[in-house]
Amino acid sequence: MNETSPSVTNLSVNGGRLWQSLMEIGEIGATPKGGVCRLALSDEDRQGRDLFIRWCEEVGCTIRIDRMGNIFARRAGLDNSLPPIMTGSHLDTVPTGGKFDGILGVMAGLEVLRTLHDLDYVTRAPVEVAVWTNEEGSRFSPAMVSSGVFAGAIPMETAKARTDKDGKTLGEELKRIGYEGEDEVGGRPVSAFFELHIEQGPVLEAEKKTIGVVTGVQAFRWYELKLVGQDAHAGTTPMEARRDALLGAADIIREVDRIARDAGPLGRGTVGFLTAAPNGRNVITGEVFMCVDLRHPDDAVLVEMGKTLANAAAKIAADHRLALDFREIVHTPAVEFDVVCIGMVRAAAEKRGLPHRDIISGAGHDAVYMARVAPTSMIFVPCKDGLSHNEAEWATPEDCAAGCAVLLDALLSFDATLAAAPKA
Amino acid sequence: MNETSPSVTNLSVNGGRLWQSLMEIGEIGATPKGGVCRLALSDEDRQGRDLFIRWCEEVGCTIRIDRMGNIFARRAGLDNSLPPIMTGSHLDTVPTGGKFDGILGVMAGLEVLRTLHDLDYVTRAPVEVAVWTNEEGSRFSPAMVSSGVFAGAIPMETAKARTDKDGKTLGEELKRIGYEGEDEVGGRPVSAFFELHIEQGPVLEAEKKTIGVVTGVQAFRWYELKLVGQDAHAGTTPMEARRDALLGAADIIREVDRIARDAGPLGRGTVGFLTAAPNGRNVITGEVFMCVDLRHPDDAVLVEMGKTLANAAAKIAADHRLALDFREIVHTPAVEFDVVCIGMVRAAAEKRGLPHRDIISGAGHDAVYMARVAPTSMIFVPCKDGLSHNEAEWATPEDCAAGCAVLLDALLSFDATLAAAPKA
Repeated sequence: MNETSPSVTNLSVNGGRLWQSLMEIGEIGATPKGGVCRLALSDEDRQGRDLFIRWCEEVGCTIRIDRMGNIFARRAGLDNSLPPIMTGSHLDTVPTGGKFDGILGVMAGLEVLRTLHDLDYVTRAPVEVAVWTNEEGSRFSPAMVSSGVFAGAIPMETAKARTDKDGKTLGEELKRIGYEGEDEVGGRPVSAFFELHIEQGPVLEAEKKTIGVVTGVQAFRWYELKLVGQDAHAGTTPMEARRDALLGAADIIREVDRIARDAGPLGRGTVGFLTAAPNGRNVITGEVFMCVDLRHPDDAVLVEMGKTLANAAAKIAADHRLALDFREIVHTPAVEFDVVCIGMVRAAAEKRGLPHRDIISGAGHDAVYMARVAPTSMIFVPCKDGLSHNEAEWATPEDCAAGCAVLLDALLSFDATLAAAPKA
Repeated sequence: MNETSPSVTNLSVNGGRLWQSLMEIGEIGATPKGGVCRLALSDEDRQGRDLFIRWCEEVGCTIRIDRMGNIFARRAGLDNSLPPIMTGSHLDTVPTGGKFDGILGVMAGLEVLRTLHDLDYVTRAPVEVAVWTNEEGSRFSPAMVSSGVFAGAIPMETAKARTDKDGKTLGEELKRIGYEGEDEVGGRPVSAFFELHIEQGPVLEAEKKTIGVVTGVQAFRWYELKLVGQDAHAGTTPMEARRDALLGAADIIREVDRIARDAGPLGRGTVGFLTAAPNGRNVITGEVFMCVDLRHPDDAVLVEMGKTLANAAAKIAADHRLALDFREIVHTPAVEFDVVCIGMVRAAAEKRGLPHRDIISGAGHDAVYMARVAPTSMIFVPCKDGLSHNEAEWATPEDCAAGCAVLLDALLSFDATLAAAPKA
């Protein structure tokens, strides 16, 4: 039994094995275009879970499953009364997803378990690799629902009652695939949580950085806008007599872009969803429904962005003589990760000689909820062209291995602090 | 038998009877919201045709049906070797149409037949009231297809092969409802064609004019644009790294509005159809498909508007780093109606003391094709709030009666010129 301080020696993860596992589990739900469709609680999700569990059991882990279907593969430590150091992510995908989003964090956790197993390295605290149910929110909204229940942010019964487009509930589907476990959800201490994920954006690739030291997650707010004008004939209605909802929407789309750019390099503003009615080639649009997504790492700046949007939308609607229904439907505050965890990730990248930079996550992750109950941070690796939620999503074997090595180091660094701390 | 010159006496149409017929035929395909759904070659279309034919036969007309299902109710004249003076319109509607578009012109033609019948007034030439098959183009595109075949502009086999969304052909459906007649389509002389229609725009109502003396139909061009950028995560993709197709589309929508306004009071520019993909709340739009409708009464001005649009779209696409596929898909040149027919309509309005103004039709009508084969003009009456292709479409009984009276006068004025002409 070998208890080496990781500050002394860099343990080697097996990058080839990690890659092999990523590709193998990527066959479950594989799409013809090279992506993956593994919707939450589908048969493919079950197959992925089965495989993950088999692999973890092969390296001596015990498996616990909670009532939300969250899986915890636990490798015992020297002192199993210590709360576990946890890593992990999710294995569900969006309908046309890729081979990396979520599953990289799970397979990297597995590779950590395998590496420790190979070296017969026993940590002070137990290590757990978590698979969180239904992170994407594609089949059952909202996203990150099961880490949300774990962290006490979402009531379990609310989560289980969520329905997919066919009316099936999350709870029914969890039972159907045999993954409704018996453990209580959350309510137990966790020493720390680290999550490895692809960046899902273009920054690391553009700056040739291998590691993103994730310091937090930006806040975001979602708005739904309905603009109602008057549908009328495109040929017979003079320009000045029109109440064209799509023209108003165009002005709002422009304004959202301006608001985001005015908020500096970290501001984001997107109209991703828009429907026009009646949507006829020769009919002026009477009604537009659109969603606006505003983001910023600073909650206070985001509040101002939202106010500017509300005022601009009201003015634009008035200018075009449109009725406006404007409502904020989601508000997720900014998350700042734990300074100790962040520092351990940064130090690991330094020690490994990996080009890195601090980065704010633009997307939500299970780590957002875990940050409410444990010291938490994340590690990003680059993805090709910044693409994610896309069958062309790609990360290199080298970057995946580098991210996994940093994950291992960070876990062991945190473990070392537990070893040094007085027992409670 | 009474052969009075219409320049001497104003014949009275029976406005109450016209209104009663409009409301009665409006029950066929009536919608709960007070509109009509009487799609071309549906069972409701057949019921409408049956009723029209019964009413025409009650006043002694003979019915001919051609191979496109166009119905001609013919009232004999003194000299039946003269080509008929024709009026009429269509009885199909858009899916959520009203009680006036098309059917007003048919019922007004019927009221002319009934008035002549009541007075035992025999015209010099025969009078025909036409019902044109599938004017709207809602079920089978293109619009005005059967008057197009009649005028030799569209091959009959092309028209009959058009399919609806369920894959049924126009020809099959024509047979199914029993309205594929035996007459050749067109290829016979017509002395003149007059069509009464609601304006489908707000101009007459706003200016308190009862009669629109339609001098022509504006030209229009349709364009299809596809913008391809890159779908990406709304949270993780910096503003400057985006290739947002919806943002490009917004700029084009703005530009279309500007181009139309710059073309003076008669220019029109509309983006009525737009779809965005993947259309997710938190995904930057990778692809937009949109249609642009540009119109102007002057073909040369419309050409310039189209060039401006093409240049602007190319610049906007380049600015946003989007691939652009830009194509013109429809070009309908301007139509100038016959000066003699126009003059007769204007004189009739004057004589009846009806407020009137010259107007250019913003929409296409069967009269557009008839103008290719006969002296043609149109008469517009106001519609409430300029609404058409809408269940709330409305015209007053008084305006309908006034339009019908002007139609009768114009037909008789043209008939008088035939009486004075030497026989061929």
